[in-house]
Formats: sequence, C-alpha cells, structure tokens
Amino acid sequence: MAAAFYFEDLTPGLTFRTGTQQLDAEAIKAFARQYDPQPFHTDEAAARTTFFGELVASGWHTMAVSMRLIVDGEFKPAGGVIGGGVDEFRWPMPVRPGDTLTVVSEIVESRPSKSRPEIGLVRARHSTLNQRGETVQTFIANHVVQRRPK
Amino acid sequence: MAAAFYFEDLTPGLTFRTGTQQLDAEAIKAFARQYDPQPFHTDEAAARTTFFGELVASGWHTMAVSMRLIVDGEFKPAGGVIGGGVDEFRWPMPVRPGDTLTVVSEIVESRPSKSRPEIGLVRARHSTLNQRGETVQTFIANHVVQRRPK
Repeated sequence: MAAAFYFEDLTPGLTFRTGTQQLDAEAIKAFARQYDPQPFHTDEAAARTTFFGELVASGWHTMAVSMRLIVDGEFKPAGGVIGGGVDEFRWPMPVRPGDTLTVVSEIVESRPSKSRPEIGLVRARHSTLNQRGETVQTFIANHVVQRRPK
Repeated sequence: MAAAFYFEDLTPGLTFRTGTQQLDAEAIKAFARQYDPQPFHTDEAAARTTFFGELVASGWHTMAVSMRLIVDGEFKPAGGVIGGGVDEFRWPMPVRPGDTLTVVSEIVESRPSKSRPEIGLVRARHSTLNQRGETVQTFIANHVVQRRPK
C-alpha cells in the first residue's frame, strides 16, 4: 500500500476522486443474470412494462463498479478500503446503458477507536456521478483505518 | 410475476426465506479481482498480514449473492424487488471460503406513498446468515411495491 493515508491524514473536508468506467447494456445484463435477474435489468423489451420503463443497471452493479473505482482511485486508507458498515445508501437516479460513472469521496467525520488504539474510524460520503454530473448513488461508509505508527 | 405480494399483503412481522448459496475461495477471488481487488479478498497468503488475517469475501460479493438469493426466494413484491435505498448496512462477521449463505427477510414497516397512489413503501430487514446461523450481513431496504389494483 504505497503512499497510503493513515487515520491522522483523513481529516473532514478532504475529497478524493477516481477514474471512470462506462457501463454498456451487455455488462448491465451480464451482472444482472448472475446477481439480480429481474426483467428491468436483463431485457430491454421486458423492461418497458416495468416500474423503470427501460433497461437500468442493478443498484448492486452500480455499487460493485463504484467499489472498483474507489479501490483504484485516490482514496487509499492505510490497511485498505475496509468498511464496517454503510449508512444512508441511496440511488437517486437510475444508471442506463452507456452511462460513464466516476466517484467523488469526501471525509465527513473521523475519531479514534476507543477499544483499539491502533485504528481509527473514518466516515466518508462516496457519491457516484454519471457523465452529466448527476448523482446516481450515494452512501456514507464507516471505514476502519490504521493509525500512524509512533 | 406470478403469486407476487402487493403492498397490502406485506404487513409488519411477516418473514420470508431463501435458498442457500455456498461461496468457495475461487468465487470469492473471482468477484474480488473484478470489483474489489484488495489482498484480503484475492490472495490467501497476502491476506495473512492484513486486518482480516485470512481470505474473506468482499462485502459487496456477500451483498450480490444475497440479492440473488432474495430474487430467487419467497419475497416477491409485485413489480419486482426494487429498493430506493438502504439503511443500517452492517457486516458483523466476515464470510470465509466454504461458508453457505441464506437470507431471512422481515417486514418492519409499510406505508402508502403520499405522492403516488399506485405504490406503497415497505421497509424490510434482510439478514444474511452463514451455515452456523451467525449473521454475516444485515440491512434495511426501502422497497417500492405496487398496490393491489381496485
């Protein structure tokens, strides 16, 4: 983990960015066939009569792609990107075939662990945006991060 | 969607079950290579020096497998399993190679939509258990469900 950030480095207000990833219809359908086989994720024609009215990505596909972007991006906590939990997970807008996603992460809170002196807890809001800058997913992750060795 | 449950059917306290899915080391590493390539998810030897001390599944893999179990299971809301968001997402215990997962879903709240008379909002707690009955993942999903046609 070269040039990773220790707990002490991850102060509220800091932001981090990622690269981009495009999702085409084939990728959307392939993920959905394996993990979320519902008609609005697997078939353009069948999707027309559903709540969404068109083929859209599974929210868990958007999440998985976002995780990959985060792991490959600027946010590199010491010890890895480890989350004990997630709050306020929302998908305000669907992801459609051809959309290109990127993630912006902002540190919103940090505090030392009371029970484990070698780690700290960092809350970060991770927002996934499409190519028009619209937010398609947002959540707050509770990260476990190593403290700087003394 | 044969024999699906309308909003009116999904009253608080009802529970639903799924089948089971085993995760072996190869599946854990394959998912992680694509979506969460960190040493504790991709390599047994490298995992030993990490926070987890052993190979464990990506939390997003546990989630994706849980979604598939839910879609194939007893919980079949009219219109599909559609979530506008998730709260209180936690992984209290890691998923290890060889673990067999199942999901138990409990309706915790339901209310008609104020703005859209054709749908209702149903909150369900989905708990993923391993073969020892230990909870490895839990979250509350905010589902959008069709109301029974009049």
